[in-house]
Amino acid sequence: MSSDFGKKVRIQIFGQSHSEAIGIVIDGLPVGEAVDLEEVQKFMERRAPGRNAYSTSRKEGDVPRVVSGLFEGKTCGAPLCAVIENTNTRSQDYDKLKDMPRPGHADYTAWVKYDGCNDHRGGGHFSGRLTAPLCFAGAVCKQILERKGIHVGAHILSIKGIKDAPFDAVSVSAEELQAVAEKAFPVQTDVAGEAMQAAIAAAKAQGDSVGGIVECAVTGLPVGAGEPMFDGLESVLAQAIFAIPAVKGVEFGAGFAVAELFGSENNDDFIYEDGRVKTKTNHHGGALGGISSGMPLVFRAAFKPTPSISIEQDTISLSKGENDRLAVTGRHDPGIVPRAVPVVEAAAAVAILDLLCRM
Amino acid sequence: MSSDFGKKVRIQIFGQSHSEAIGIVIDGLPVGEAVDLEEVQKFMERRAPGRNAYSTSRKEGDVPRVVSGLFEGKTCGAPLCAVIENTNTRSQDYDKLKDMPRPGHADYTAWVKYDGCNDHRGGGHFSGRLTAPLCFAGAVCKQILERKGIHVGAHILSIKGIKDAPFDAVSVSAEELQAVAEKAFPVQTDVAGEAMQAAIAAAKAQGDSVGGIVECAVTGLPVGAGEPMFDGLESVLAQAIFAIPAVKGVEFGAGFAVAELFGSENNDDFIYEDGRVKTKTNHHGGALGGISSGMPLVFRAAFKPTPSISIEQDTISLSKGENDRLAVTGRHDPGIVPRAVPVVEAAAAVAILDLLCRM
Amino acid sequence: MSSDFGKKVRIQIFGQSHSEAIGIVIDGLPVGEAVDLEEVQKFMERRAPGRNAYSTSRKEGDVPRVVSGLFEGKTCGAPLCAVIENTNTRSQDYDKLKDMPRPGHADYTAWVKYDGCNDHRGGGHFSGRLTAPLCFAGAVCKQILERKGIHVGAHILSIKGIKDAPFDAVSVSAEELQAVAEKAFPVQTDVAGEAMQAAIAAAKAQGDSVGGIVECAVTGLPVGAGEPMFDGLESVLAQAIFAIPAVKGVEFGAGFAVAELFGSENNDDFIYEDGRVKTKTNHHGGALGGISSGMPLVFRAAFKPTPSISIEQDTISLSKGENDRLAVTGRHDPGIVPRAVPVVEAAAAVAILDLLCRM
Amino acid sequence: MSSDFGKKVRIQIFGQSHSEAIGIVIDGLPVGEAVDLEEVQKFMERRAPGRNAYSTSRKEGDVPRVVSGLFEGKTCGAPLCAVIENTNTRSQDYDKLKDMPRPGHADYTAWVKYDGCNDHRGGGHFSGRLTAPLCFAGAVCKQILERKGIHVGAHILSIKGIKDAPFDAVSVSAEELQAVAEKAFPVQTDVAGEAMQAAIAAAKAQGDSVGGIVECAVTGLPVGAGEPMFDGLESVLAQAIFAIPAVKGVEFGAGFAVAELFGSENNDDFIYEDGRVKTKTNHHGGALGGISSGMPLVFRAAFKPTPSISIEQDTISLSKGENDRLAVTGRHDPGIVPRAVPVVEAAAAVAILDLLCRM
Repeated sequence: MSSDFGKKVRIQIFGQSHSEAIGIVIDGLPVGEAVDLEEVQKFMERRAPGRNAYSTSRKEGDVPRVVSGLFEGKTCGAPLCAVIENTNTRSQDYDKLKDMPRPGHADYTAWVKYDGCNDHRGGGHFSGRLTAPLCFAGAVCKQILERKGIHVGAHILSIKGIKDAPFDAVSVSAEELQAVAEKAFPVQTDVAGEAMQAAIAAAKAQGDSVGGIVECAVTGLPVGAGEPMFDGLESVLAQAIFAIPAVKGVEFGAGFAVAELFGSENNDDFIYEDGRVKTKTNHHGGALGGISSGMPLVFRAAFKPTPSISIEQDTISLSKGENDRLAVTGRHDPGIVPRAVPVVEAAAAVAILDLLCRM
Repeated sequence: MSSDFGKKVRIQIFGQSHSEAIGIVIDGLPVGEAVDLEEVQKFMERRAPGRNAYSTSRKEGDVPRVVSGLFEGKTCGAPLCAVIENTNTRSQDYDKLKDMPRPGHADYTAWVKYDGCNDHRGGGHFSGRLTAPLCFAGAVCKQILERKGIHVGAHILSIKGIKDAPFDAVSVSAEELQAVAEKAFPVQTDVAGEAMQAAIAAAKAQGDSVGGIVECAVTGLPVGAGEPMFDGLESVLAQAIFAIPAVKGVEFGAGFAVAELFGSENNDDFIYEDGRVKTKTNHHGGALGGISSGMPLVFRAAFKPTPSISIEQDTISLSKGENDRLAVTGRHDPGIVPRAVPVVEAAAAVAILDLLCRM
Repeated sequence: MSSDFGKKVRIQIFGQSHSEAIGIVIDGLPVGEAVDLEEVQKFMERRAPGRNAYSTSRKEGDVPRVVSGLFEGKTCGAPLCAVIENTNTRSQDYDKLKDMPRPGHADYTAWVKYDGCNDHRGGGHFSGRLTAPLCFAGAVCKQILERKGIHVGAHILSIKGIKDAPFDAVSVSAEELQAVAEKAFPVQTDVAGEAMQAAIAAAKAQGDSVGGIVECAVTGLPVGAGEPMFDGLESVLAQAIFAIPAVKGVEFGAGFAVAELFGSENNDDFIYEDGRVKTKTNHHGGALGGISSGMPLVFRAAFKPTPSISIEQDTISLSKGENDRLAVTGRHDPGIVPRAVPVVEAAAAVAILDLLCRM
Repeated sequence: MSSDFGKKVRIQIFGQSHSEAIGIVIDGLPVGEAVDLEEVQKFMERRAPGRNAYSTSRKEGDVPRVVSGLFEGKTCGAPLCAVIENTNTRSQDYDKLKDMPRPGHADYTAWVKYDGCNDHRGGGHFSGRLTAPLCFAGAVCKQILERKGIHVGAHILSIKGIKDAPFDAVSVSAEELQAVAEKAFPVQTDVAGEAMQAAIAAAKAQGDSVGGIVECAVTGLPVGAGEPMFDGLESVLAQAIFAIPAVKGVEFGAGFAVAELFGSENNDDFIYEDGRVKTKTNHHGGALGGISSGMPLVFRAAFKPTPSISIEQDTISLSKGENDRLAVTGRHDPGIVPRAVPVVEAAAAVAILDLLCRM
């Protein structure tokens, strides 16, 4: 009763950080859709670690093997399963952590929940590594969405207070989304990106880590995606996005800033423009009553700093039942946000395709 | 495929703003639990309009009639259904709105989604009125949770920039939650509350409206509630909270502020205190890896200003296919946030009980 | 986690035999579909007791009140809720049964499952009375199906060994289904029907009861309804049909008789006829691989004799923990099968519409 | 929206007959349960083809590789995934069948449903081969059930009119279930088994095939498993059993025979025996009101003869749009029933564990 998502297009993720393999089953995909596995691979490499000086030095091959669901290169109605082998695992790095839960991680809560039977190695099923199969699903869904003229793109909006230019919620285009996605460091303003990278490097030098905010936009959505109440666009997207480890906040359109606006400021007036209904502004972020309005869908997700830091912290020894001290060793990202960008896109793409297919 | 929520404790909401009745079915409740309907009624009155000078003057009787699911005052294993009659509806107020969608409302998106067949009167199924049955369910779930020592409480954290004192995420107690809930205007610092009420009154005088932020806490949660990934505490709660009309952002613990912290600042160290595992701080907001940590669960929801304002706005005429102007008449809240407080509690209570019953 | 059914068109039944009301919520119906409530009422009267000399003398008004989901007579996208008041309940008839479970009923199993908290009056949530809201849903779904050229009809195939003529699985028509449905005693061969009625009367005279078999056919189904494996036509229909109290067997097409056939006898050869693909015979009963073949869907359900009989039987006293004797008094059907015919149609109609809407 | 089953213990099957691999993900298993993979393998071999002279000569290695979900040999809370490679596929056997659907198979219905994009090779996702991963899941669930004292066993009740001795529905024991399961040809009366094998051999000699009936029993079930209505024991089991290819009928307890009994004959009187509540007879088959009664659960499933026969049959050419003739070549079972026995056990074990874990 977990690790699955969706009602019409439905995914089921499996695996632990150090199990033999991880992977995903995607059921309910539209039929007859070509899947370009090279494109999938390229998308997954945007998430892969080891792309730059700052990310974890664990190299993940991460070549998904599609074992079912495609026939002659197209979806065939059968569930699509992709398996990614776990190689380059160094389980011994985690021996000490079985007893000493890392602050900020699921080590302690999983240990209690599963009566000590959880696979603690590398965070087990709670590892950020499990976002790799999610990216696989997102890449497949993005290809299908793009054929319908729907584009999903994201960028780093801020890291440690350094801000990138936000998307223009009214006019952001598929081309802009594409352009930022192709960058090694996905920001719109490169000078901000350089400052962010310097901030990550500085944190790394101190054995510390930083968080940030990812902004995501979806263009080309028709009016009418999303169901009332608990299956509204925001509800379904938030459920997907909060499933990404380290996300602590999600907001749509003007988001938390709405709390300071008058209704007359926040309301987005309707107009006919070139025979189509639009809104002049887009504080609503593309969803009204949980249903897509035809305007770009825009949302932001806040990521906490990677909890694994080499600075020594207070924690406990579960076996001794007493307080203790821990410095996390092993390979960890001082700044997970750049790698989180495609993960946010992937979660959004899966949720959007599911809602579209329910229409 | 909508308007239902939960996997073990499952709710199904029905009704439109101006249909004969609205209501809810709750299935999967623990059996043998007494339901005090007077307490339910008191809780629902916290949401009811017409309690003060600022809220809509529509009087809703809102006495839920329980037609099934209880036997000798206790849950009996059969689905519990409560029906609330819709009285005091003035459908003629909405005749013009069938053609002219209100900015900020679901009028336009519902009209497209349902090919013009939607019940537009009062917003139909998308009306804030549908939070009444949600409050019924929340009141029932709260009674069951409280018998397990779990308390859910919320207050207004801010309206139009005026801030109440936040809950102390480490030490907030059931008593504090209870105390703020019993106030006619649910804030911890009454002077802030008075300023908020003045801000609402000022907006009303201008025919305008304001939004705000509600903060909610849950105390007494055991460690282990929440499932991995898409059924994590944050995912499930966010799905429930975003189903409340007007919510545009949800954040847990330190929330969006995590984006500016170092890992060494944000991590919450574990300690043994009186033989129990706690964290010294609570930036994580009570959930690690989507699983409750035993610390208070703390989250915030941002509400946009009520979109119904009497100031004239630009909108369109769907029948004429041209731009037009609209001033919304009828009875509307200039500040929905005070009434939203119990709704947030209710959505949280339903989600929490569902997750607990899955353990 | 019960009393609900369907994935796209989804029903949730509520109520107990002697609660204030029973009813149903139907979510996910196609939008813009007119619902003729007089037709619904006529359909429900086919199930109603008291139509003839043999059935229970409890008169159920059974006029469903639609409180939501319709707007100007059509489905509007919001969940449709119908409430049926429980009147004419005589709860005192059931006082003794709280302690002495009736053989063949759910009294004992529900008592154990719900720790004695179940509503035992009239069988509570397990009463055949709960098929009334199912019939409401079936009547609504049948109207929608009929607009698509799909007809669902059933008849009594046998009672106590007396057999009616079966439907011709290859050629059964909508007209034939309609004709048998309109009869007071739904059989194709009236002389068989008279013998069946005599058998029921004879059982009644002895304080005993009889069971029988209902055969159901669906014509006009397009090719392609049904999903692989657990959501195949047979799986989904069987789940729905076994939810009707007293059903002990379900079979499709040739059913249990396939066990005695050679493959060369049982296989249904494909042919083109008037440019359409058909099968020459229809042992498969309209579903191949769980997917509709375009041939009539034909299945049968076996109903056990009503367990409530006035002949004295052995049972136990739960309070005394010892063996005892019971003669069931109160109002009961000696032959439930005639009233079960529309219930089978209703369950089938709901399941079929759900599968069609998933295509 | 298919190929998955269960609400608490949930399985998702993937693969096609000739895709790279097939497999299953099982989520929601109880945690800390040892899984003996040798025992799993032994169970799966009961289903494997090529065990005797009569079954298909396709040799399936069928060694499932568990890639996740176990840690130190025990379930760890993460979804358990097993992958079975597809080897020894001879896709060219199926080239002709892409155009000419085999009577009795899903070839035609899948082709229409998926617009010709389905993987036709070997029946694709509709192949009996997909029961191998179901058997994997069943073997895992059986181990967990057996630790709770619950045993699931099945035997061939009849083939082509030749009958084995049925289980005694009142007294069948775990030992009897075990004994029949260990036989190469799972019948209670070996002389009947020999006659059945002769009947299969005779059909094979003619290029024909036979069907039969499998009877299954579950002992040791506590009272209270099963939910009301659509999640009753019979509904859930029937959904699972009808998902097995070739099943055309399912009946519980006295099954279709109830249609000829009086209530006074069919009712099972309650008695106290050794301080426990039992029924004297077991026509109800272990479920009353959809809830387990504590008596053995007994049901039967009818399997149609394997549709793949080498006798020439009428069919159509989809490309030419005209009638044609087909003799199915390739490797096929003339009598699938012996191999279906463990599949029925597996489906039942999965369904039962799911319902138990929901209690």
